[in-house]
Amino acid sequence: MKRKSGSERLDEFGLIRFLTERQPDNRSPSGVTIGPGDDAAVVKVTDGMELVVSCDTMVEHVHFKKETLSCEDIGFKALAANISDIAAMGGIPRFFLVSLGVSADWSDDQLKAIYNGMYELADSHRMTLIGGDTVSAGQLVLTITVLGEVEKGKALRRSDARPGDRVFVTGSLGGASAGLDFLLKNGKDQVVQKMSRLVEAHQRPVPQVKAGRLLNQAGFVHALNDISDGLASEAWEIAESSDVRIVLDPGNIPVFPGVEAYAREQNMDYMDWIWYGGEEFQLIGTVPATQEKQLKSLFDQNGLPIYFIGRVKSGETAVVLAGTGKDEHPLPRKGYNHFRG
Amino acid sequence: MKRKSGSERLDEFGLIRFLTERQPDNRSPSGVTIGPGDDAAVVKVTDGMELVVSCDTMVEHVHFKKETLSCEDIGFKALAANISDIAAMGGIPRFFLVSLGVSADWSDDQLKAIYNGMYELADSHRMTLIGGDTVSAGQLVLTITVLGEVEKGKALRRSDARPGDRVFVTGSLGGASAGLDFLLKNGKDQVVQKMSRLVEAHQRPVPQVKAGRLLNQAGFVHALNDISDGLASEAWEIAESSDVRIVLDPGNIPVFPGVEAYAREQNMDYMDWIWYGGEEFQLIGTVPATQEKQLKSLFDQNGLPIYFIGRVKSGETAVVLAGTGKDEHPLPRKGYNHFRG
Repeated sequence: MKRKSGSERLDEFGLIRFLTERQPDNRSPSGVTIGPGDDAAVVKVTDGMELVVSCDTMVEHVHFKKETLSCEDIGFKALAANISDIAAMGGIPRFFLVSLGVSADWSDDQLKAIYNGMYELADSHRMTLIGGDTVSAGQLVLTITVLGEVEKGKALRRSDARPGDRVFVTGSLGGASAGLDFLLKNGKDQVVQKMSRLVEAHQRPVPQVKAGRLLNQAGFVHALNDISDGLASEAWEIAESSDVRIVLDPGNIPVFPGVEAYAREQNMDYMDWIWYGGEEFQLIGTVPATQEKQLKSLFDQNGLPIYFIGRVKSGETAVVLAGTGKDEHPLPRKGYNHFRG
Repeated sequence: MKRKSGSERLDEFGLIRFLTERQPDNRSPSGVTIGPGDDAAVVKVTDGMELVVSCDTMVEHVHFKKETLSCEDIGFKALAANISDIAAMGGIPRFFLVSLGVSADWSDDQLKAIYNGMYELADSHRMTLIGGDTVSAGQLVLTITVLGEVEKGKALRRSDARPGDRVFVTGSLGGASAGLDFLLKNGKDQVVQKMSRLVEAHQRPVPQVKAGRLLNQAGFVHALNDISDGLASEAWEIAESSDVRIVLDPGNIPVFPGVEAYAREQNMDYMDWIWYGGEEFQLIGTVPATQEKQLKSLFDQNGLPIYFIGRVKSGETAVVLAGTGKDEHPLPRKGYNHFRG
């Protein structure tokens, strides 16, 4: 962890000390040869494994607001987004680096709380902070790089879907967007009991590392993607990169508990949240139809849900919705706009 | 390379396409199993090597201004800072990820130029861009993560200086700060011929990868650090992390050509630039006094300069300047403030 020019204020705050004291150099977490405190970190990649690496940035006012996330939530969620990318390759997250840009309106305690949120999630995955830097900026900008491992040649790509596959998701959807809708209307200090699970789905989305590992170990999974940008966008990514046609059956898509009731109450269409909401971090992927049962029982044995929501065809690249009979309705490709509607 | 929520504008600009087209998925650079375009990249670490990793952020108005750096310079310099961290461990840079936060006042062409500056330096080190993301932000925020390799157990730490060592630097100093001084007073469009080398030292600092590799391969080098924050600060880092006393001999410190003349002209003390200037990326380190000659001839053979500028003692942890006889003058520990005087 380096103190970087332009971060004198952070140095005063003792933030860097707080971070490095938590992981003193004389502790040697598994795989870490040199941790924070030198010019770069040095880590070992396990024999037989390749390195999986991703980085992702969360920006104040663009990806989150103080009104919707606590400081701990900000840290938790930023790291969750990165871990989710490793999970979507079927990998194991191991190490992370944090680059934090900070504006003057963030206090010492708030910054520590952001790191505590990260550590909470990191600890549950036995991940180690190995470096990063801190700089002054006009708003909070949090960039995390996650390093993980995957067995050589076994990473799951989004481009491997094939005609004849079945499409699956690893969990129910729409909760994060319903929670965000509530938070934007009420603020994070007005959460009532019956909304707590939806709000938590937005504030503390859980990356599906265990499911990703099961899918990797199954050995027969074709494509895999995480749902960070809405089901429509992610299905489109698989369809385009695999050059296939995906037919989804809306009736089979699992809806997060409480979403339908809240949508009714708000006079909104919850399917919009499922298609175009974001940051739920469930996984979407495809397997040969012949392996559907085997995958279902593998997930059952491990106490994890899995839902089959569509199929892969040849033909014009697209994502469409199954209708009655041979009808197919195109699913528009849109991304997730955090605070734009 | 992911398009991230909140970056619709960049998608319009086709920036992501520009980036991924330069490194199409069907090209397979050495060591890259999966490049940009999926949730995460997958790369191989060479057998017998450990991974060296560092990330570093440059923020507009804090670390650079449009008045002092061209867009190409911004990209070049941001990547140089990261490569320098790998060089300071004695490692070989291999891969990099780029997270770019962009405000509305940066055009498509400017963003491409930033990447072109990065590619120019990356190509000269045969490095491959493997991922990253792009987001909206209130100012340009450029975070780069560099991955490199080093022989197992051979990374050079800043904490390994020992009493009896000699202190060396790999090149002359002060040029980058003199160049910045000129740029702040005149702007980057008014560079006269006689200032061009000083200005280039600021805009295009060269990370010392070859020197770092030589120092690693020598096998007898103790401590190593890159000079990103001024010679004083870096010497202090070695002294504190190694728990030693460093005595520097100002008369032996190599001064970048043209710095003394420019300082005289401006009525400034060029030693201030050497002690407290930044981002030169020369390396400072220590070797046993008995190996000084061997190191010098190794560098001579490879056509690289090396200068011996001080010694390491036991005693109270500090950096001091040698005086006449036994006199020692303490060297204040200050960091480098980019635009604060």
